[in-house]
Amino acid sequence: MTDAATNMRLKLPLICIILEVILIILFGTLVQYNYETDARLWHEHKTNHSDYDNDFYYRYPSFQDVHVMIFIGFGFLMTFLQRYGFSSVGFNFLIAAFALQWATLMQGFFHGMHHGKIHIGVESMINADFCTGSVLISFGAVLGKTSPVQLLVMALFEVTLFAVNEFILLSALGARDAGGSMTIHTFGAYFGLVVARVLYRPNLDKSKHRNSSVYHSDLFAMIGTIYLWMFWPSFNSAITAHGDDQHRTAMNTYYSLAACTLSTYALSALTAHDGKLDMVHIQNAALAGGVAAGTAGEMMLTPFGSMIVGFLAGIISVLGFKYLSPILEEKLKIQDTCGVHNLHGMPGILGAIVGAVTAALATRDVYGDGLEDVFPDVAKGEIEASFQGVRQAISLAVTLGIALLGGLIVGFILKLPIFGAPPDTICFEDSIYWEVSFTPLFIVLVILHMKTTLRYKCETGKLN
Amino acid sequence: MTDAATNMRLKLPLICIILEVILIILFGTLVQYNYETDARLWHEHKTNHSDYDNDFYYRYPSFQDVHVMIFIGFGFLMTFLQRYGFSSVGFNFLIAAFALQWATLMQGFFHGMHHGKIHIGVESMINADFCTGSVLISFGAVLGKTSPVQLLVMALFEVTLFAVNEFILLSALGARDAGGSMTIHTFGAYFGLVVARVLYRPNLDKSKHRNSSVYHSDLFAMIGTIYLWMFWPSFNSAITAHGDDQHRTAMNTYYSLAACTLSTYALSALTAHDGKLDMVHIQNAALAGGVAAGTAGEMMLTPFGSMIVGFLAGIISVLGFKYLSPILEEKLKIQDTCGVHNLHGMPGILGAIVGAVTAALATRDVYGDGLEDVFPDVAKGEIEASFQGVRQAISLAVTLGIALLGGLIVGFILKLPIFGAPPDTICFEDSIYWEVSFTPLFIVLVILHMKTTLRYKCETGKLN
Amino acid sequence: MTDAATNMRLKLPLICIILEVILIILFGTLVQYNYETDARLWHEHKTNHSDYDNDFYYRYPSFQDVHVMIFIGFGFLMTFLQRYGFSSVGFNFLIAAFALQWATLMQGFFHGMHHGKIHIGVESMINADFCTGSVLISFGAVLGKTSPVQLLVMALFEVTLFAVNEFILLSALGARDAGGSMTIHTFGAYFGLVVARVLYRPNLDKSKHRNSSVYHSDLFAMIGTIYLWMFWPSFNSAITAHGDDQHRTAMNTYYSLAACTLSTYALSALTAHDGKLDMVHIQNAALAGGVAAGTAGEMMLTPFGSMIVGFLAGIISVLGFKYLSPILEEKLKIQDTCGVHNLHGMPGILGAIVGAVTAALATRDVYGDGLEDVFPDVAKGEIEASFQGVRQAISLAVTLGIALLGGLIVGFILKLPIFGAPPDTICFEDSIYWEVSFTPLFIVLVILHMKTTLRYKCETGKLN
Repeated sequence: MTDAATNMRLKLPLICIILEVILIILFGTLVQYNYETDARLWHEHKTNHSDYDNDFYYRYPSFQDVHVMIFIGFGFLMTFLQRYGFSSVGFNFLIAAFALQWATLMQGFFHGMHHGKIHIGVESMINADFCTGSVLISFGAVLGKTSPVQLLVMALFEVTLFAVNEFILLSALGARDAGGSMTIHTFGAYFGLVVARVLYRPNLDKSKHRNSSVYHSDLFAMIGTIYLWMFWPSFNSAITAHGDDQHRTAMNTYYSLAACTLSTYALSALTAHDGKLDMVHIQNAALAGGVAAGTAGEMMLTPFGSMIVGFLAGIISVLGFKYLSPILEEKLKIQDTCGVHNLHGMPGILGAIVGAVTAALATRDVYGDGLEDVFPDVAKGEIEASFQGVRQAISLAVTLGIALLGGLIVGFILKLPIFGAPPDTICFEDSIYWEVSFTPLFIVLVILHMKTTLRYKCETGKLN
Repeated sequence: MTDAATNMRLKLPLICIILEVILIILFGTLVQYNYETDARLWHEHKTNHSDYDNDFYYRYPSFQDVHVMIFIGFGFLMTFLQRYGFSSVGFNFLIAAFALQWATLMQGFFHGMHHGKIHIGVESMINADFCTGSVLISFGAVLGKTSPVQLLVMALFEVTLFAVNEFILLSALGARDAGGSMTIHTFGAYFGLVVARVLYRPNLDKSKHRNSSVYHSDLFAMIGTIYLWMFWPSFNSAITAHGDDQHRTAMNTYYSLAACTLSTYALSALTAHDGKLDMVHIQNAALAGGVAAGTAGEMMLTPFGSMIVGFLAGIISVLGFKYLSPILEEKLKIQDTCGVHNLHGMPGILGAIVGAVTAALATRDVYGDGLEDVFPDVAKGEIEASFQGVRQAISLAVTLGIALLGGLIVGFILKLPIFGAPPDTICFEDSIYWEVSFTPLFIVLVILHMKTTLRYKCETGKLN
Repeated sequence: MTDAATNMRLKLPLICIILEVILIILFGTLVQYNYETDARLWHEHKTNHSDYDNDFYYRYPSFQDVHVMIFIGFGFLMTFLQRYGFSSVGFNFLIAAFALQWATLMQGFFHGMHHGKIHIGVESMINADFCTGSVLISFGAVLGKTSPVQLLVMALFEVTLFAVNEFILLSALGARDAGGSMTIHTFGAYFGLVVARVLYRPNLDKSKHRNSSVYHSDLFAMIGTIYLWMFWPSFNSAITAHGDDQHRTAMNTYYSLAACTLSTYALSALTAHDGKLDMVHIQNAALAGGVAAGTAGEMMLTPFGSMIVGFLAGIISVLGFKYLSPILEEKLKIQDTCGVHNLHGMPGILGAIVGAVTAALATRDVYGDGLEDVFPDVAKGEIEASFQGVRQAISLAVTLGIALLGGLIVGFILKLPIFGAPPDTICFEDSIYWEVSFTPLFIVLVILHMKTTLRYKCETGKLN
């Protein structure tokens, strides 16, 4: 079922090995342990601190939760397609393993250089996973229609642009975005949507029968959904300041997600003509509350505010799946396989807006000395809270701009006919890129049936 | 396949939105950050503590383990039914997302009020998840026979009664029950069993063919089982005192579960006439050791004691599945879909008794100054250890009383013919409440087969 | 489908109950809480420490990750076989639950005795899980060809020998092996391979059609793979020294695994004639980077060094699956079901060699005062770093020797025809040991089809 163009025998090994060798060389020349992972440096300061002051103990449990979201969460969420489970989990695995290494370098280059070296530890690992998450969101938009080589090329460019955008937002503009409503979700979604637009396939309906779920594939996808849902509080709080900040962010996200789940179920039943729940909504829209709490989660949003945000995010997301996605596909020619616009795009923008408003309303009355952690420039008196809100709004605009432009350029690169993209007739199909064994009993049945039918036709003269 | 009565188009959205709006309003008026999640309050005390003193770092890893048990553990454990996987995971998700919000309010109302406000943080999140667990246990008893609207109504009342019972036990009676043998397992099981009794369906055998597992559904269920098993040490230790208490509780539970697993396998093979292991036993009875260590786990039960308790729990549980469940169904008319009586009911009572005995035997010789953490009233000299044992025993009786009475009342409420319960002929069936796509190949086969048969009959004159 | 020999009705209950009763008695006489889990002892020292000094908070999150690897990781990794999912997860569960209890005693006996008692806490729990991991590796070599009774007997002996080997390496020889490249992976793999050799079945091809995967079983196996991959950083760092050591080990492993994943995909596509990826490689070889970083992970290997190690491990592992495994089976008559030689054997040896070299190159310049944590004897000036390297190399040889000899003896014990091993014709088959229900619709279809065909043949005179 593989023709020459999609044969990965040389293309995939070549790009994997070249990329990994480059990574290893760059790590060898540029990357060093930071003082918390370096045996000598940590012990030099030992008199001033206890082992517990090592950031490892503050962040490693959150890191592992994020790690699960990246590899199990995203990977299994995309197994909903009936014939694309291997690729969903397997390509997710491959591009994430590449992206986290490349992100370590790119993010380190933009905001972790110390005397010409990149210093790394658990926080850079979390940030690398975050950046990877953005790539996986874009992957969702082009799922089933791209070769692993295309995906690695996309990851290469997207990670780079992510780091640029992140640098502009957090360092140049002084925006806050701990859980990445803008940097991760909005960026990843719109980047991926533009790539999907450029890679538009007018004859994709030839693979239509494979672009759907079956009973068990939906259950596998629920593993991804539930893990993303459960660990989102860890995601949003993973790199916030120690103490009340991590604690508050996790709690805000917890309530946002809970409220979102109820509005998702409500809207899913309401928008179906027979009142039946749609797995697509449950698998995706119920997570929108986590996305929408990504920016404001660390702020004094209150559980009350978080629940309102989550409630709205669920509504927007289901409505997007139901009414907006078909329009995007028909009018704008954006074939968004996983509906990332509904899960990451719109809720990401909502999260950015909520973040801007919440930031603009910050006061020392509410935050006390904690203002220093969340809005350091406001705390120092350098700017007004309202201006922090403006910074946040500008950051959203910058993110959209870089994502759209970047996606456009990268989309055209990916369109080059050298990366082994699948033909329109065999999209959403594992067997192009994977050795696949089918249930033998199935096959036996089909063959037996054909034989009987044929013989019957033959005997009764129906064959002619 | 949906008739008017089970159509959720209005009922489900209505109840979800009304409940969530009420929750949001109540959170807005009643709920506040506690001093560990509030930016101002935490930083006011900053001179007296380091960031590590924030309870977040003591409890958040345990919280996430508990969270996994609630959403993955309970959710996937119930996917063993061949045609009810969407509902098992999906309704589990829905009612848990509602219950944890409602539990925050109810538990806060009964034992977390400060100047008219409910203060929340990671400990209240764990407690909310615990209360949710109780609802999910009851869900197991009525699995496959209730609509999502019924389940939300049940959760609404059960959470309230849970909070009342918990308040009586822990605050009024001064009982100890860190892992909830009584408050969570006994309460949830007997509440659910009485509800199942009231909702008795004499014609349920019409759905009998769907009330069983298939090969892959049993594997999905094992995901739930194993997660529950692994994280039970975190469950029982999540809200015990810091230090030795959390450490000891986790370890006791670890050994109780290990011993329970061996007795479960032994009894499962022994009670089968052909010596074959039964997945139902492995999926459920192997967990009874966690339930039975719920009360005494934080006490100086010793690994030795824990293993005896776990060993007995596994035996009781398998015997319950094999011999008691059929009797309950035939004589008492309790159709207990998941056998919660065997996993949560009897082992919960065993755990309560073990807790009472272990409490009665507590001495300062054994506990030293640690007595203060586990039995504060005994440590202060206000009561004898033996009286603590009496308190525990009374608590079990109170729990059973409230569970049975509460289940009775709620059962009759759920019987009202307005909640869209499925008819007897289509219980244990996802397609009433969910859009379900079947394996296309399957359908093709069936159609082809029908065609061949028809044509054959036609040709050979068998049709008339 | 069960004949008398494989009937487990008495054998399995008998061995489970006898083993568990012995365990309980030995725990009762030998095992005590250590000072961090004992209420009295912990509180006696309370003035000198805060609750955070309790090792629970340093290690419990890592413990839970390791626990997930043992029960979900190993369990589901082995579900790739189409008809052996119950046994893979279920026997993994059983023997792990037994092995961790027995390991507590054996490891405690060899290096945890205090005044005739074994003191236990979270570190001993991790070590018990580690030892269990070794048994599960051996299980992988004999998967599908052994009864649960054989597996329990194997675990009984293997745990004992593991503890002996571990004692020789860590205590007598003074080797370092935090992540167990030698003690866990090399030992478990070669022990299991020799057992598989002794249990060689010349007629195993009679079960050949069942010794393969189907689409969904490969997806279940990916759950195991991804969990092992994600949590390997926790595995390797779980018992290293607090502070920089845990932090560094986790990070080294993270990068080793990422690099390994890329070389695995590269080699998998390269070695397939049609360039298609092979699930067997992805499921296994991508993990070799974790194995190979088991010894040197805690050393100053640098991310750069870790990535080189991981990169090589992936290459070796895929090549092993492709070219060496068939040779092992044909020439050496080792039927290695899961290919543990490629995932644990060779990468384990690689890890041991990397550890020896890295140890030999250790200097105080690089490690500073941290040298004390990683190479205490070198830090004290008792030995040169180069000699530490020699120790490591000797440890590898000792491990191989004990594993090979031990496996030989235990193999012959397991060959005794009293343990209910399956016949050659029904290996890799759940229904010998488990009650299995098949998809009813499937069966109905098959039966209907046979009927139609028969009737058609009968009517048209084709039957004779």
